[in-house]
Amino acid sequence: MAKKTKAASLKARLPKGLRDLEATEIRALDSMLGNIRATYELYGFEPLETPAFEYSDALGKFLPDQERPNAGVFSFEDEDEGWVSLRYDLTAPLARYVAQNYDALPKPFRRYQTGPVWRNEKPGPGRFRQFTQFDADTVGTDNIVADGELCMLAADCLEACGIPRGSYRITVNNRKLLDGILQAIDIDPRAEANSWRRLTVLRAIDKIDRLGPEGVERLLGEGRKDDSGDYTRGADLKPDQIKTVMGYVTSSTDKPDQTLSNLEQLIGGSKLGEEGVSELRQIQSLLGSAGFGYDRVVVDPGVVRGLDYYTGPVFEAQLTLETIDDKGHKVSFGSVGGGGRYDDLVARFRGAKIPATGFSVGVSRLQSALSLLGKGGSEAGTGPVVVLVMDKNHLADYQTVVRKLRNAGIRSEMYTGTSGMRAQMKYADKRNSPCVVIKGEDEKSEGTVTIKDLIEGSRLSEQIEDNISWREGRPAQFSVKEEDMIAAVKNILDRHDA
Amino acid sequence: MAKKTKAASLKARLPKGLRDLEATEIRALDSMLGNIRATYELYGFEPLETPAFEYSDALGKFLPDQERPNAGVFSFEDEDEGWVSLRYDLTAPLARYVAQNYDALPKPFRRYQTGPVWRNEKPGPGRFRQFTQFDADTVGTDNIVADGELCMLAADCLEACGIPRGSYRITVNNRKLLDGILQAIDIDPRAEANSWRRLTVLRAIDKIDRLGPEGVERLLGEGRKDDSGDYTRGADLKPDQIKTVMGYVTSSTDKPDQTLSNLEQLIGGSKLGEEGVSELRQIQSLLGSAGFGYDRVVVDPGVVRGLDYYTGPVFEAQLTLETIDDKGHKVSFGSVGGGGRYDDLVARFRGAKIPATGFSVGVSRLQSALSLLGKGGSEAGTGPVVVLVMDKNHLADYQTVVRKLRNAGIRSEMYTGTSGMRAQMKYADKRNSPCVVIKGEDEKSEGTVTIKDLIEGSRLSEQIEDNISWREGRPAQFSVKEEDMIAAVKNILDRHDA
Repeated sequence: MAKKTKAASLKARLPKGLRDLEATEIRALDSMLGNIRATYELYGFEPLETPAFEYSDALGKFLPDQERPNAGVFSFEDEDEGWVSLRYDLTAPLARYVAQNYDALPKPFRRYQTGPVWRNEKPGPGRFRQFTQFDADTVGTDNIVADGELCMLAADCLEACGIPRGSYRITVNNRKLLDGILQAIDIDPRAEANSWRRLTVLRAIDKIDRLGPEGVERLLGEGRKDDSGDYTRGADLKPDQIKTVMGYVTSSTDKPDQTLSNLEQLIGGSKLGEEGVSELRQIQSLLGSAGFGYDRVVVDPGVVRGLDYYTGPVFEAQLTLETIDDKGHKVSFGSVGGGGRYDDLVARFRGAKIPATGFSVGVSRLQSALSLLGKGGSEAGTGPVVVLVMDKNHLADYQTVVRKLRNAGIRSEMYTGTSGMRAQMKYADKRNSPCVVIKGEDEKSEGTVTIKDLIEGSRLSEQIEDNISWREGRPAQFSVKEEDMIAAVKNILDRHDA
Repeated sequence: MAKKTKAASLKARLPKGLRDLEATEIRALDSMLGNIRATYELYGFEPLETPAFEYSDALGKFLPDQERPNAGVFSFEDEDEGWVSLRYDLTAPLARYVAQNYDALPKPFRRYQTGPVWRNEKPGPGRFRQFTQFDADTVGTDNIVADGELCMLAADCLEACGIPRGSYRITVNNRKLLDGILQAIDIDPRAEANSWRRLTVLRAIDKIDRLGPEGVERLLGEGRKDDSGDYTRGADLKPDQIKTVMGYVTSSTDKPDQTLSNLEQLIGGSKLGEEGVSELRQIQSLLGSAGFGYDRVVVDPGVVRGLDYYTGPVFEAQLTLETIDDKGHKVSFGSVGGGGRYDDLVARFRGAKIPATGFSVGVSRLQSALSLLGKGGSEAGTGPVVVLVMDKNHLADYQTVVRKLRNAGIRSEMYTGTSGMRAQMKYADKRNSPCVVIKGEDEKSEGTVTIKDLIEGSRLSEQIEDNISWREGRPAQFSVKEEDMIAAVKNILDRHDA
């Protein structure tokens, strides 16, 4: 095929919404993923990896953004296997895995998984078609303890990544409460005929942060026209129904007991609502006894979470640090992860209900936040020590030097290009090398090597203005006996790491 | 969609050739990947990550197995982007990346990348449609030093993963030598009309280990019928041509200089062949000066490597340890990685030639080898400490205990299921927990906790045959003051790690 392709007629580019990650970003990301992994492990979760694609019917399609008809998954028809799809999250593959291996698994089954997921959506700023999730789930128990643990896990995760206490909050709500409010205004949330209206109410509530109370009221009523003139149809509730829902949305206080009492009054005897309040109370008490106070985990009736499959507690990890939105306004950073209880996902395969609850970190969102805090991209690290090639007839000399460095565990390479000294020094600079090592004829006859400290050199060059005295002085360059080379290089590395 | 699916009519299964990785395997794999990464870093390579899919035309299709018409890539037509394909290796995306970012990169550009690749091939035992590669490449130099480095890297990688010296060899050859042999028998290797014959000769040589000299001779001549009766067409060489090629294939000796002299005679003045020998001599000398002797890196004229795009040195990491093949015969384990020089891949985008050379570890092959050596799956690790739930009205007590353990960095969890004591103990066993912690009413009133050492317990239970004395004796179970719990648990963990 290579031969058939017209040379250089091909453009080197990536499809929209995909990107390459380079060294600095990968190192920062790996460090963050390591902190999340350590926290998940500390909580007793075990790793699992499922493949990138699965049968389309096994994955199903439980995507949040159902407003856009185009939203979806990458699917293709395999000649042997029929329709397969790239995974769009890590929860659907987990449900398939648990159903397939249920009898052999410990119950509850607690696993974590990280990896890329793919969404066939319109890409935008900060919105990619391949991105990484990092999930922890407990499957096979309806014990509310499992949900409470995930709220603690979320808080501990953020702190392990360097988000200071006070800059985040974990908000908790319960889908049963949301459905209880619907019951309280005489809309049966489980009746098929009400499903569109139920979804419209949930979506309206979900937009309280963005639209404010007035906007939400419109979406609960006849609908709302946005700034661009686009009209969104409303849920068509009556004024007193709207009043109850708005009371619910604004029932949050800074005292958990007060919030829970407010909610209890609003749901007015709905059975689902009472279950929801009771579960929130249990989570609250559990968190309290583990030392997680209201400064970290907050009951917030406005938290909805996009996914349709949640059935009980839902939670969100929100960063309260401020950033600038598209329109230049200051806004709090918002969600970097979330999750909740989903009791019906495994049942698709097994018939019998297998309750489950999970938490997922939005990896790139969290990394953006860490960058904003100045904790995201600082791990640039130093490049390798570069051993210069003075004369290509003496490669063996340079190779011996590299071998000594590597045997001492020092990251290093002999220059592998074919250019001269000036280009080699430029190369070392571009690689962010801490130093170069020179073993020319003079050094060889003296049994020495010359070491140029590039980081010190660049610091000095900013101080010395006179170019000639700079070059003649050869600062940050010195000669050592070859047997002292390792110690001298380590000395430079230690100084730069400090 | 969930609602439309008939409950439990769905079968939970994976498409053929895909698999899930579970905790033990993931831990062993991560440990191995960490060793490879450390070696690549030591050699000065920097990480890069490219996305899972790319434009189909940007990837091209340079797959080794061109005999099977079905062999290929997973491709799908995206409504916005046209045809895209899942990557089938990490080299084609690298070529695209380098072409796209060439001006900004240090030259030579040295990167490593690991991750899954996908092949749309018939799966078989040990042959998956998603598998992991781990590559290091140097792009932008025709310096043979870069190839020599990769041979050292391959050897160091295997040793870092625990393959002892003497159990592997890195074999080196040169495509120019293979083409030189063709020139020596009057077949122009660069003439389009000879491309099928050239490939047939290369494939025949590649099969020397499997078919022996007689089988290769047939494939060089009129063809060969295998045991199943399938006929493979041969290269139709004349007897004296076959004799030269066979002389080449068997020219390897245990003395590198002797092998190189043999080769020099055989190629009989072919320019390409002479270049090939000269490059092998340079690699040999470079490796020698770095201390890599013939016990590790061997010139082997039989090494072909499947990929069509190689243009110069090719190398293979082979394990000499023995294993049993499909038919029950003892065979040496064979290739766990390889690579070579490919000078035309980036040119597809840029017109101008950008020479490159790379090495790739076949991750699952290497892991299978480590398992055979008893070094692959031993990192089972211990599960979390499980704090038992005695009475669900006292969850706060157990949660306090878990918090103390986690604050001390001890992997632990409160049992999150809803079953009784017996099931909880079974759960802890299944999780491979080192111990469980019990804080019942008695313990609470005494300010103590009871700790059951499960690993010691299971050891003792094998010694004690009398079931009653076992239960009454409660071995490996003891009580400590709650403030001494951390020290007691750490003591158990230390004993089991030792």
